[in-house]
Amino acid sequence: MSKPIAIIAGAGPGTGSAIARRFAQIYPVVLLARSNSSLDPLVKDITQSGGSAIGIPIDVTSPNSMTSAIEEIKKKFGPETSVAASIYNVASKFSRKPFLETSADEFLGSLEPSIKGAFNFAQATLSLMRVDAEGGKYPPTLIFTGATASLKGGSGLSGFAMSKFGIRAMSQSLAREFGPKGIHVSHAIIDGIIDTEKTKGFMEDIPDSKIDPDWIAESYWFLHTQPRTSFTHELDLRPYSETW
Amino acid sequence: MSKPIAIIAGAGPGTGSAIARRFAQIYPVVLLARSNSSLDPLVKDITQSGGSAIGIPIDVTSPNSMTSAIEEIKKKFGPETSVAASIYNVASKFSRKPFLETSADEFLGSLEPSIKGAFNFAQATLSLMRVDAEGGKYPPTLIFTGATASLKGGSGLSGFAMSKFGIRAMSQSLAREFGPKGIHVSHAIIDGIIDTEKTKGFMEDIPDSKIDPDWIAESYWFLHTQPRTSFTHELDLRPYSETW
Amino acid sequence: MSKPIAIIAGAGPGTGSAIARRFAQIYPVVLLARSNSSLDPLVKDITQSGGSAIGIPIDVTSPNSMTSAIEEIKKKFGPETSVAASIYNVASKFSRKPFLETSADEFLGSLEPSIKGAFNFAQATLSLMRVDAEGGKYPPTLIFTGATASLKGGSGLSGFAMSKFGIRAMSQSLAREFGPKGIHVSHAIIDGIIDTEKTKGFMEDIPDSKIDPDWIAESYWFLHTQPRTSFTHELDLRPYSETW
Amino acid sequence: MSKPIAIIAGAGPGTGSAIARRFAQIYPVVLLARSNSSLDPLVKDITQSGGSAIGIPIDVTSPNSMTSAIEEIKKKFGPETSVAASIYNVASKFSRKPFLETSADEFLGSLEPSIKGAFNFAQATLSLMRVDAEGGKYPPTLIFTGATASLKGGSGLSGFAMSKFGIRAMSQSLAREFGPKGIHVSHAIIDGIIDTEKTKGFMEDIPDSKIDPDWIAESYWFLHTQPRTSFTHELDLRPYSETW
Repeated sequence: MSKPIAIIAGAGPGTGSAIARRFAQIYPVVLLARSNSSLDPLVKDITQSGGSAIGIPIDVTSPNSMTSAIEEIKKKFGPETSVAASIYNVASKFSRKPFLETSADEFLGSLEPSIKGAFNFAQATLSLMRVDAEGGKYPPTLIFTGATASLKGGSGLSGFAMSKFGIRAMSQSLAREFGPKGIHVSHAIIDGIIDTEKTKGFMEDIPDSKIDPDWIAESYWFLHTQPRTSFTHELDLRPYSETW
Repeated sequence: MSKPIAIIAGAGPGTGSAIARRFAQIYPVVLLARSNSSLDPLVKDITQSGGSAIGIPIDVTSPNSMTSAIEEIKKKFGPETSVAASIYNVASKFSRKPFLETSADEFLGSLEPSIKGAFNFAQATLSLMRVDAEGGKYPPTLIFTGATASLKGGSGLSGFAMSKFGIRAMSQSLAREFGPKGIHVSHAIIDGIIDTEKTKGFMEDIPDSKIDPDWIAESYWFLHTQPRTSFTHELDLRPYSETW
Repeated sequence: MSKPIAIIAGAGPGTGSAIARRFAQIYPVVLLARSNSSLDPLVKDITQSGGSAIGIPIDVTSPNSMTSAIEEIKKKFGPETSVAASIYNVASKFSRKPFLETSADEFLGSLEPSIKGAFNFAQATLSLMRVDAEGGKYPPTLIFTGATASLKGGSGLSGFAMSKFGIRAMSQSLAREFGPKGIHVSHAIIDGIIDTEKTKGFMEDIPDSKIDPDWIAESYWFLHTQPRTSFTHELDLRPYSETW
Repeated sequence: MSKPIAIIAGAGPGTGSAIARRFAQIYPVVLLARSNSSLDPLVKDITQSGGSAIGIPIDVTSPNSMTSAIEEIKKKFGPETSVAASIYNVASKFSRKPFLETSADEFLGSLEPSIKGAFNFAQATLSLMRVDAEGGKYPPTLIFTGATASLKGGSGLSGFAMSKFGIRAMSQSLAREFGPKGIHVSHAIIDGIIDTEKTKGFMEDIPDSKIDPDWIAESYWFLHTQPRTSFTHELDLRPYSETW
């Protein structure tokens, strides 16, 4: 009987890696990202720490690519594999641009990860969740990563805001549909700059003013451990110094 | 010098017609809908009441179709035509269905009006708004029709909720971008059953329990008349008997 | 048979006056404020414009004072007087102050207008509303004036935010209780600086950057005219130049 | 050098007890409730489990009573005592009643715990929080217990909603004021029936359909452990079977 697994989409450096490492302390993890170049070091890192991980390069916005990934997962973990937790951490494209100068292709392209991607991923992973899975200590959990723009549409950010509002809408709808089946769907509003390689040098004058990816991971893990009596459907994460 | 015009997308029977008739009391109106069959009677009705109206059959989700419509408008009203008000009243597809039984095509198809359509329409009409337009008594105004699902993602309604949350995100972003230019962008949450041909027979036991399309129209007109000192960016409309 | 009346609490210079003048175009108005000094010029102004107005100096936070005012109203307009519209526009005390330096008296004192006052006023005026009142063209309406702080608790503003969140809570509860009886309860979020004597000199560099009190009044009047099929329970009012 | 302590107001049976027991695993706890009868068994229980607890009967709505409690705490734990965590879990009075039948005394009385009590408690405990306290592993934390009515004012519940909206306002204001100082202020929306002695027999037909007080406690503890890089300011807790 195979152990339940965790699947993380958007398992690049930074938040995705931190989440993967956290869930790998308990589950074999499947890491999805666009290219092997971001997957390989993470798989190696987790494996060396005694965890179990595989990386699958994938275009989450493509149904075929998602289907292939699921087939690969079943081949690897057995046809009866169940998903204990799946995390949709794929970034929405952020680019502040005057609305009238935005081409339809730019606008729609920026929405694809949040719409096609989230749909493909949520459907594929929810269909592998089983509340009575052997070895499943916690309710199966689907978590979406949100942002400031989940709650507020900023100037010049129509596409980004539409993505993030949309993800939140999906999270709420799925929480209401799958909650009564014992599946936990939750949404995290990450409001602030995340402390990663890319943001080195930002806000260095204020100590601890960037969100710690390990604590995003810890918070997601906490959500996963909640029993069905006590589900959190939304929480925010924000540095102490953030204006909001 | 041509008079500013109003453009209404989703000018079908019910709300769209009511809005068109209201704005036609002041402006020549351009009515957009999928087919001439819903446009013709409305154009005739407005013309007979002394208003000026043209109907253009269009697929708002197609950039080319939108571009052609704008060309037709310019041909008719002159190349310097300005838009006093544009209303995006195209319905999002509503179908409650288990998420795992929804195909990608169904899901994405249901989003097109709210994403591609709203983008095409907002961009085309905003680019024709001029705050200093001669004959422009009120700030140019873009209004989006929202729904209960603009604020709450219901079970089995991921696609619909994503559409409506998305429209609201776009409305907020555009309000923040175009407000400072003197253009009024607003969002109306229509929360309840609208009293139309289609809903005849619904809730007949409670008098006045359906929203009056003429009062949606009146409310949109009210929004349009607000000066730039005092813009409303969101209002709800709900029958007195509605549980919310 | 006496005509329905409108009652405005917080009928001082600025917004209260503007509301009073607007409703006085249709109804005899009763103006409530702390002192005759702010009531007298307004009563005179309305009377000279052909309207009917009386001013009653009152401490709205005192149940006795409210009761006396209602008795005076009944004496003046007859025991069968009905209220067509009542507007609670009493300011909540705004003072940004470090929480740890705020005395209990300051804190609680700042809440009185929003809690005791709103309770006394809402109860007194709702009890005089009759949906079948002769001469009552529109559903009886109770409107509360809110602020930015109705939605967001700012730093150093606990008392003010508690006041404004509280007023919004009351408005929602009353809307849900009295709506089904045909009474319209609504809440307006006034988000920005209002253009009054007191704010002369503020933001003079940006034209039209303060909210026009007459348009607050016009918006309240619009709310009042909505039929029970189509009630708005909340709207915001904000200058085009406001950051939000 | 004395160890930081935790203070729990509303330490009655059910949620308060569960929170107290959880925080007593790490800190000496001070339990505040109206009477010794609810404090004594809890103090005994915690002491017998190896924890350290004292109970102080108190009327949190009275500034004098709160001041005496703080003096007692300083006498017991030393004048340099610091507070690691304080939790305001005092119930707001819930009674659904027609608004026009509610007396001013009832209405205002029902608000006292949420207004006077929360003010007294927040001020007293925040003034004892020190971010550099020796033995203080986590940022000092103040948590408020909210409810469904924190977000929605229900019919016949004006007073209760005003209480709960008010608490949320205070939590937001304090979070924005004290966050930059490294103090974590958070608000938990408890949306559902809590599984306590009093609710025995409720919803017995659906397993696990009541919120587990131990998981409220666990969630509060989790909030407390978050570092200042990653504060959660609001989360909800809801059984899987809850309609929302």
